[in-house]
Amino acid sequence: MTQPSPNLLNPDRYFDTDPAQRRVARELYEASAKLPIVSPHGHVLPEWFSDPGASFGSPTELLIIPDHYVFRMLYSQGITLDRLGVPTRDGSPTETDHRKIWQLFADHFYLFRGTPTGMWLTQELVEVFAVDEKLSSHNAQDIYTHIEARLAEAAFKPRALFDRFNIEVLCTTDPANSRLEHHQAIRDSDWGGAIRPTFRPDGVVHLLVKGWQANIIALSEASGINVTSYANFLHALMQQREHFKALGATATDHAAETAHTTILSESEAEAIFQRALRQEASEADARAFVGHMLTKSAEMSIEDGLVMQLHVGSIRNHNSLIFQRFGPDKGCDIPHRVDFTHSLRPLLERVGNHTDLTLILFTLDESAYARELAPLAGHYPILKLGPPWWFHDSLNGMARYFDQVMETTGLHNTVGFNDDTRAFPSIPARHDVWRRASANWIAGMVVRGIVDLEDAYEMNLDLAYRLAKTAYRLD
Amino acid sequence: MTQPSPNLLNPDRYFDTDPAQRRVARELYEASAKLPIVSPHGHVLPEWFSDPGASFGSPTELLIIPDHYVFRMLYSQGITLDRLGVPTRDGSPTETDHRKIWQLFADHFYLFRGTPTGMWLTQELVEVFAVDEKLSSHNAQDIYTHIEARLAEAAFKPRALFDRFNIEVLCTTDPANSRLEHHQAIRDSDWGGAIRPTFRPDGVVHLLVKGWQANIIALSEASGINVTSYANFLHALMQQREHFKALGATATDHAAETAHTTILSESEAEAIFQRALRQEASEADARAFVGHMLTKSAEMSIEDGLVMQLHVGSIRNHNSLIFQRFGPDKGCDIPHRVDFTHSLRPLLERVGNHTDLTLILFTLDESAYARELAPLAGHYPILKLGPPWWFHDSLNGMARYFDQVMETTGLHNTVGFNDDTRAFPSIPARHDVWRRASANWIAGMVVRGIVDLEDAYEMNLDLAYRLAKTAYRLD
Amino acid sequence: MTQPSPNLLNPDRYFDTDPAQRRVARELYEASAKLPIVSPHGHVLPEWFSDPGASFGSPTELLIIPDHYVFRMLYSQGITLDRLGVPTRDGSPTETDHRKIWQLFADHFYLFRGTPTGMWLTQELVEVFAVDEKLSSHNAQDIYTHIEARLAEAAFKPRALFDRFNIEVLCTTDPANSRLEHHQAIRDSDWGGAIRPTFRPDGVVHLLVKGWQANIIALSEASGINVTSYANFLHALMQQREHFKALGATATDHAAETAHTTILSESEAEAIFQRALRQEASEADARAFVGHMLTKSAEMSIEDGLVMQLHVGSIRNHNSLIFQRFGPDKGCDIPHRVDFTHSLRPLLERVGNHTDLTLILFTLDESAYARELAPLAGHYPILKLGPPWWFHDSLNGMARYFDQVMETTGLHNTVGFNDDTRAFPSIPARHDVWRRASANWIAGMVVRGIVDLEDAYEMNLDLAYRLAKTAYRLD
Repeated sequence: MTQPSPNLLNPDRYFDTDPAQRRVARELYEASAKLPIVSPHGHVLPEWFSDPGASFGSPTELLIIPDHYVFRMLYSQGITLDRLGVPTRDGSPTETDHRKIWQLFADHFYLFRGTPTGMWLTQELVEVFAVDEKLSSHNAQDIYTHIEARLAEAAFKPRALFDRFNIEVLCTTDPANSRLEHHQAIRDSDWGGAIRPTFRPDGVVHLLVKGWQANIIALSEASGINVTSYANFLHALMQQREHFKALGATATDHAAETAHTTILSESEAEAIFQRALRQEASEADARAFVGHMLTKSAEMSIEDGLVMQLHVGSIRNHNSLIFQRFGPDKGCDIPHRVDFTHSLRPLLERVGNHTDLTLILFTLDESAYARELAPLAGHYPILKLGPPWWFHDSLNGMARYFDQVMETTGLHNTVGFNDDTRAFPSIPARHDVWRRASANWIAGMVVRGIVDLEDAYEMNLDLAYRLAKTAYRLD
Repeated sequence: MTQPSPNLLNPDRYFDTDPAQRRVARELYEASAKLPIVSPHGHVLPEWFSDPGASFGSPTELLIIPDHYVFRMLYSQGITLDRLGVPTRDGSPTETDHRKIWQLFADHFYLFRGTPTGMWLTQELVEVFAVDEKLSSHNAQDIYTHIEARLAEAAFKPRALFDRFNIEVLCTTDPANSRLEHHQAIRDSDWGGAIRPTFRPDGVVHLLVKGWQANIIALSEASGINVTSYANFLHALMQQREHFKALGATATDHAAETAHTTILSESEAEAIFQRALRQEASEADARAFVGHMLTKSAEMSIEDGLVMQLHVGSIRNHNSLIFQRFGPDKGCDIPHRVDFTHSLRPLLERVGNHTDLTLILFTLDESAYARELAPLAGHYPILKLGPPWWFHDSLNGMARYFDQVMETTGLHNTVGFNDDTRAFPSIPARHDVWRRASANWIAGMVVRGIVDLEDAYEMNLDLAYRLAKTAYRLD
Repeated sequence: MTQPSPNLLNPDRYFDTDPAQRRVARELYEASAKLPIVSPHGHVLPEWFSDPGASFGSPTELLIIPDHYVFRMLYSQGITLDRLGVPTRDGSPTETDHRKIWQLFADHFYLFRGTPTGMWLTQELVEVFAVDEKLSSHNAQDIYTHIEARLAEAAFKPRALFDRFNIEVLCTTDPANSRLEHHQAIRDSDWGGAIRPTFRPDGVVHLLVKGWQANIIALSEASGINVTSYANFLHALMQQREHFKALGATATDHAAETAHTTILSESEAEAIFQRALRQEASEADARAFVGHMLTKSAEMSIEDGLVMQLHVGSIRNHNSLIFQRFGPDKGCDIPHRVDFTHSLRPLLERVGNHTDLTLILFTLDESAYARELAPLAGHYPILKLGPPWWFHDSLNGMARYFDQVMETTGLHNTVGFNDDTRAFPSIPARHDVWRRASANWIAGMVVRGIVDLEDAYEMNLDLAYRLAKTAYRLD
């Protein structure tokens, strides 16, 4: 059961069916398939790796309960999150029978036909867990038993899988106020896996976010700087950036509903920050402060060399009922329209021409790809485009990205792939989809005489491996 | 002349030309091609079926004069609607020589190359009317004579064609204030065709629409409830919904310029309604009332089980000159940008988590497909996505829909096909385009190893037949 | 070295790799490949043709320094415009060693892989300059030497290349206040090349543009009408339009950030114009005036028969630092979202139903293609859609255009191709990309049974040659 079943996993999957293109795609893919994985942005938990004995729990705990890609689809068809064992905020009970939850999932596996989640899970079951049948109502319990047994083996502990997956480097995402104990523990251990933190200040920058006051206290504690003003807020951030760098960080990450940027005077910023400390900040204050801190963060990055990432366009917790009962990241974040051209201009006017800053942009609004993002990144030295994000991290999403972005911005203003996942065992499958999609896209250009094979090989290695390393300064 | 001419109608039309994909597409299509037609939303006139002797009139009356898809294209090239016999609002004369109009149409048939109208008409002429030549200036009169003769035959009466088309069920769209006499007459007849009404309250909900006062009077008369207040307006609507249900309705239909929803207090709603009765309602009143009534209609649907449809984004009667002379639905409705994420939130916060409500969304703004609609329908239990609508009901429109919608929302959050037409003889051609496009899309996934043949067969039947029946509660 | 190298230039390039489609595409392309070039809109300098001895300068002067497509990509990767020899506004020195600039370009030629600039340059080097190797760091100086030698030959003077390129007619773009001396000189010469001016009033219509006062003075001088009021501003424009027509103009061109149109009263327009003369016009004044002048220009076109073009959606000089140092057109114009449906309505209500006016629309916001532009042009007699513009003038941009525009608007509401370039030697390559992309698109419809070969040939000639001539009244 260790060889992938050809019935479940076509070795030429995702390639164009035209024989000429498929031949070139396969040839290119063979050159990138076995390259180490560079995972510069994601949400894997560092604690899985700091403790050598850590384990992933039951199949349901690993594959269903934490994966909002999975349970949002089930929820959309009327299956409540209670029945899927998703934990509640107030601790009120939800389903605890993991085999029952697994059965419910298997009964509805048909919902994932043709979806990226379906594709990742299929590959994961076959290649990671050596399952050799398509999941169904009938074999659900047997497959559960099989995976459960695998997860109990030493070879399926997090560190063992990290090594088996051939991950060269994996970056986690960590709050700005983190002490990074788990990262420290990994460094202190005798295990050689390269896991790096990423500095994410959203929890202290978004003034109206639930728990902001507590986040600021934690920032004071972590940094050793008592955050009582905007001025020492900045010092605390800079202090923590140094701490992150010392533990291997090469990047920061910023999320916002819009791409609004602005530049406040020091006194305006201080006044807003003081109102926030008094819990009197308005929506307008919060919006201005986020926009200001993006520009400020870019300036800090010019100083300390951390690559900056900006993820824009998700309206978080769109469904209040789900948010109140289950908390954030429960499949109810919904994208909306985003302007970049006007919104980013204040930041770009301030720092856009620096050659020692990298700002990587991510969008959930694909209509900005060809219209705004490709022209922006195709001009400003600081800008690069991140790969297709979230809902667009899919076979078609990648094809649209290549189609709409590359002609204008060029390959070298992009940054390869991000898996951006907390679903650790899906990482090889996600990178495999990207490498196949890349190879196929380039093959399409070869057979249509747009690039020659020599260039094709270079582009293929760039997309699969080199661009991510370079852009994130991981080399 | 009863066999389709292979020169005019390629049996493998619309399938990818790659031999492997074409083979699978053909195989899938053969499994769905002969399935009965389920037509859950459209604008066919019930009077064609209530009178056993009803006929379609001349070829020009059937195929040109009522079809705004046809005459808008001719108009765009400078052919006035007068010359095409489109009736005027004030009864001033337009062209009455149907052969002359037909000739004008045939002289410009080249305008429809590569358009869905061209594709539907070609298939309709070949398969319904057994025309075996491409329409041209030269054969226009002969073809007219031929179709005219067919239309005089018993086999070409509406009921006969309904049976020949193998229509399992066809839903019309009827104003909320209708008495549904024609539907009653169909039920009372000995003819077995399943024709169901759909409840469309736009004419009484849009307070500033031309004729609103008259529509309210008609609602009072039809419902037997004197509509003098918002409170008994709601009663009258509920009364009529019951009447529609009694005659087979399973759905309602709502159109709006935007997806704006809101919830007014009863007193606010009443105040606006009273202003409307006094002809003093403002644009803001009208907008708020439409948004409120969408939420209210969703609540009514939870009560009575009618599936709710929402068609958003058309600016009706964009060209005042045409509207004033010829009235609505004359090819001058122009779509605009629409936000769903923010606009639908008030309604979704109220009823979005119900599992006994279905709200089907239609858009003319495809940029919302991947960004907003697929994530929304991929999360909220009440939401499903309607098929490509109007300008997007086309081969490329379908391909874009499959591409942009399916990965995120999944097949089961969609509802199969709607022909949405008043052009009755085009119905088989429209469903055929969809079934071919579906089969081809699925075949593309089969040959690229994304779904296996077993799943492909299920998906193909879902798209061609089952999803429409289930979503519209027609089973 | 005069035959294109098959290694560099695949004779079947840009065609689908499926053998059936490729065969039809090649057949169609062969029918259009050798047709004369009709170039109805572009930015080639007339002075290259008025002086029989004019030359293009060095390879770097011809191919790099003036081409913002080229240097924006290099700039995005951190290569300053100074190093590329782009001249500064204040005359401060930049790199003058053309061989050094060429080397820098060649060292970074990999940035253009898969981009339209890469495709045009490759074809240009092979077909115009008979270069038979791929440009690289190693051969950069040899290729420079080779091109330099060619440019010194009589056969590479502008007029000679014009003839060799088989250009039937080429339209330049000229400010409304131009005296058109170069066009006059071309007419007066014994050379037969058909070069026509296009009337572009942006510099006098955009009240806040740098240099507006000077532009008005030049308009007074050129027209012989002292522009001291809105009233005689209109007269001066009409006078100049006549002058342009006398020298062969058949069209006007208008650029705007948005598609906003409006109709001011004569007194409002006069008041704004007077404020502008006093340098007191506000942003709102400027916006209203531009919107008003679009409507006014349409009315003038009804009078004098000039075809009107509207290019919408570019935020010019987004990067102030570059604009201040190097001036406009330096690769930092960034598109933004544009509404057409509401914005154009005032103009369309005024003149939209005229059959003797043609208004050609261009967009940088492709999300409007299927949603707004195709329905608008598929209804209003005055409207036609221009080809993919600027960032979208690319192989994928063309495919998206055909996909999203044609089904709704139909071929005959489009206008063939515009090369829109100042890079004269790239003109054949640009038209070749279009002709190949067109042939391939039509071939795709042939092999899928959507159009027959007879229609395909007509459509192919329309796109390659006939539509441009007809729409721009060049026949």
